[in-house]
Amino acid sequence: MRGSPPGWDALSGYDQQRAVLAVPASHSALQLLRGALDEKVPAVLIATRSHYERIYSRFPWLYTRPVILDSWSELASRRVQQRLREMNAVLVPHGSLVEYLGWRRLLELEIPLLGNRYLLEIEADQHRKMSLLREAGIETPRTVTRPEEATGPVIVKLPGAKGGRGYRLATPETLPRVLEELEKLGYTREEIIVQEYLVGVRLYTHYFHSPIYGRVEIIGMDTRHESNIDGLARLPAALQQQLATEPTYTVVANTPIVARESLLATIISYGERFAEAVERETGHPPKGPYSLEGVVLEDLTYKIFEFSGRIVAGTNVYTGTGTPYTWLYWDKPVYMGRRIAMEFKQAKERHRLQDITT
Amino acid sequence: MRGSPPGWDALSGYDQQRAVLAVPASHSALQLLRGALDEKVPAVLIATRSHYERIYSRFPWLYTRPVILDSWSELASRRVQQRLREMNAVLVPHGSLVEYLGWRRLLELEIPLLGNRYLLEIEADQHRKMSLLREAGIETPRTVTRPEEATGPVIVKLPGAKGGRGYRLATPETLPRVLEELEKLGYTREEIIVQEYLVGVRLYTHYFHSPIYGRVEIIGMDTRHESNIDGLARLPAALQQQLATEPTYTVVANTPIVARESLLATIISYGERFAEAVERETGHPPKGPYSLEGVVLEDLTYKIFEFSGRIVAGTNVYTGTGTPYTWLYWDKPVYMGRRIAMEFKQAKERHRLQDITT
Amino acid sequence: MRGSPPGWDALSGYDQQRAVLAVPASHSALQLLRGALDEKVPAVLIATRSHYERIYSRFPWLYTRPVILDSWSELASRRVQQRLREMNAVLVPHGSLVEYLGWRRLLELEIPLLGNRYLLEIEADQHRKMSLLREAGIETPRTVTRPEEATGPVIVKLPGAKGGRGYRLATPETLPRVLEELEKLGYTREEIIVQEYLVGVRLYTHYFHSPIYGRVEIIGMDTRHESNIDGLARLPAALQQQLATEPTYTVVANTPIVARESLLATIISYGERFAEAVERETGHPPKGPYSLEGVVLEDLTYKIFEFSGRIVAGTNVYTGTGTPYTWLYWDKPVYMGRRIAMEFKQAKERHRLQDITT
Repeated sequence: MRGSPPGWDALSGYDQQRAVLAVPASHSALQLLRGALDEKVPAVLIATRSHYERIYSRFPWLYTRPVILDSWSELASRRVQQRLREMNAVLVPHGSLVEYLGWRRLLELEIPLLGNRYLLEIEADQHRKMSLLREAGIETPRTVTRPEEATGPVIVKLPGAKGGRGYRLATPETLPRVLEELEKLGYTREEIIVQEYLVGVRLYTHYFHSPIYGRVEIIGMDTRHESNIDGLARLPAALQQQLATEPTYTVVANTPIVARESLLATIISYGERFAEAVERETGHPPKGPYSLEGVVLEDLTYKIFEFSGRIVAGTNVYTGTGTPYTWLYWDKPVYMGRRIAMEFKQAKERHRLQDITT
Repeated sequence: MRGSPPGWDALSGYDQQRAVLAVPASHSALQLLRGALDEKVPAVLIATRSHYERIYSRFPWLYTRPVILDSWSELASRRVQQRLREMNAVLVPHGSLVEYLGWRRLLELEIPLLGNRYLLEIEADQHRKMSLLREAGIETPRTVTRPEEATGPVIVKLPGAKGGRGYRLATPETLPRVLEELEKLGYTREEIIVQEYLVGVRLYTHYFHSPIYGRVEIIGMDTRHESNIDGLARLPAALQQQLATEPTYTVVANTPIVARESLLATIISYGERFAEAVERETGHPPKGPYSLEGVVLEDLTYKIFEFSGRIVAGTNVYTGTGTPYTWLYWDKPVYMGRRIAMEFKQAKERHRLQDITT
Repeated sequence: MRGSPPGWDALSGYDQQRAVLAVPASHSALQLLRGALDEKVPAVLIATRSHYERIYSRFPWLYTRPVILDSWSELASRRVQQRLREMNAVLVPHGSLVEYLGWRRLLELEIPLLGNRYLLEIEADQHRKMSLLREAGIETPRTVTRPEEATGPVIVKLPGAKGGRGYRLATPETLPRVLEELEKLGYTREEIIVQEYLVGVRLYTHYFHSPIYGRVEIIGMDTRHESNIDGLARLPAALQQQLATEPTYTVVANTPIVARESLLATIISYGERFAEAVERETGHPPKGPYSLEGVVLEDLTYKIFEFSGRIVAGTNVYTGTGTPYTWLYWDKPVYMGRRIAMEFKQAKERHRLQDITT
């Protein structure tokens, strides 16, 4: 796949000056729409009827028009793709869209995607994902390939981006049983990744690779609230043991966080090296938002256990106000949704949409 | 009480054009005053001498004038009420005022209250409170009516809004003893509510019911820091067990939090259904701020264990900057204090104060 | 030392109108530079080559020029001090600079320091530090002078500001062993302080003493994320015990937090009394930023276990946006870096740099 674009040119037939952002419902849609509004960039909302009625119909001023689908798979239909192409739409992919549509169908979509679509395939495979990080020279947790290699607590992760659902914590003792259970659920041993569980502060860093400005920007950081573990850890120890509930890691919410300034040396270096590794691996730089997700250990090492090749929902915590980092770059409140709209606007004006899409 | 307004018309004799906001000290007074200032709405501060000297005297530019009381009960006196009526004052009630004055005296105050005063009586009774939520079709934790029904950890809650003080965590084994202890302190079994303890992410959602705009807005979300449980949970397990300190839940501080966007479907629906249920139950909609307080479980169910029929202190985290949600509605930084002042200003100008007061 | 200024006049030969802020790299440098930019105050960055290349070279618009050092000790050289004096530079000290240069050399620097340099010596001694707090009438945790006095968990703190690194949690049983281990590492018993471990909500309050406005302002609050304890406490209790890892307290990141409004009575009083005690003790008020760091107990007592006589990194969480407290004072987004630049600008214009420096 290295460097091999699809057989078609996603932007062919597009009138760049009239291009619009196409924002799929859920995940980070509201800030993406708000960002487009801030920058006076036209944005269409793509939503299933249910999402539309329950959430987005409350905010009609945020999009120039809605494209209502009966189901997400309709987005892959010739008709809807044709309609979006007629609008000169550039689709902003996010984790929920990957989950709804599946990475294969998203990869094959004949609509230009903002960002690097070739990351979708890598992300779908937990092992390739970690390889890319290591190839970038980024510190990662140890991968446990055989249960007997586990020397402490491990986290067992399933394929795909499901917001942490189904992740399991295990010990060297319980790991064989956990793996067996997952195999019974139909997961193959190859799909699952077992990682050393890192004990420290969870830090999710948001980056933006700007082809227009020729740089990687730090947009912000968040930390996650996960269910049930947040509640479980807050029960007195004696009661936890009495309950014997297994911890689960469904991401429910996010909170702003700011790292010690000295960590920025590592954080900047990781962000830049990741962008370079992505370009080496796929033939394209990230072209927009991405995120490195990890834990800072007591010796201040930042170990990355996962990445997202697109906007992460943790950026939602800064909608409207900007972040302690974007204020270093800009004189107006910039959050990820707006940053994307800013880049899109400039690319449009300069006829450079090919530089921010794949 | 359904639909029965007090025998007097709270706004009778008022010159609506000259109406002022009356903001009681403590809780969320600073953001209420700041919000009024942003909107150029006149605001008087009502404070005891002690509150005034220790806090509000430092911010004289935030209010047009202070009304200093010797004690909170003075607010219920004919003299002070008369004085406030002469100012055309609309009182913004909050949890601390309920605690200082008692809900009965607040309910009977002959000053227009911003919001729905009839909720005060419902809120004073933990059982009616939960009924209203269930009547709205909102998911709630199971109420344990007899100790032997407890199958896991439970939380034992006392009547009134005291910021979590006195709440007790119990297990099926310790519950009878805890109830006995509370009875010895003078609480009746009817006043106390025992709820299934929910294990997940605590999410406090702030709403604003706008009679002027005819809609329910999401203002923001926070999560709470409680003492001693926050510190207790942060001790290593072995040490916790050695200490054997009982957890307590006094609310000390708040932090911003943002829910996964897909949860907004539930959050919006809860907010709207709550407003409808309040209107069915009391004859008036909420007319301003309220909050639903709950836990998001690992299956992403949002269970509400409590509500506040008024502004909650968790909204303080957004003073001045606006929230990731208000930026979806407005082109300026809007936080709860300012949102209230905006509604008040519009109601004044349109002679519609009756729509936002009771 | 009480009231004894150094033998030289730090501002002698300075052209106050042309004074610049000198901001040392790391810690809170980015917000200090951004604040200067907001206020159109000239600012030079002082950085080692490594800091410069890895972080600050990415933000060249934030400073008027960089002063690049081969090592931090160069800052104490006659040549660099001369160069800074020629620029009419006022140095903004912070915790990292104290760590890099050592408090003695910083204290002896012949460059005016923004703030009160005499606090450096007090802060270097954990016992004098606590005395100053007690002398101010601020509640503090009990100090354990002999191991046998410990009745519950204690925290063992090393001298100097190292962001919590090396702090140890101990019990009455483990304390003698922990002390022994530290003595073997070369620490004397006098350097170490053993404090009662406080169980509650950790609250770090940021203040600004303004000689220009003649008042103490609350700038904001944060809470800290520490490694490994944050991760350790999030492991199920059974697993924690199996791991038997000792907790560590390296500060990694910060999150915004807002205290209950009623706590402001204590918080304001502490801030003002601390400023007075500093003036009594050193002959100078704090003249700028400082911080009180403590725990709020379940009875809402705020006990302070540490202070910083300078800007703390927790203020970084508000860069650009302002805080829920600064919005009470100002009509523009003010964060600590900008607040410092505002005071500096006013002092320059009024020829009052001596009031904000030592």
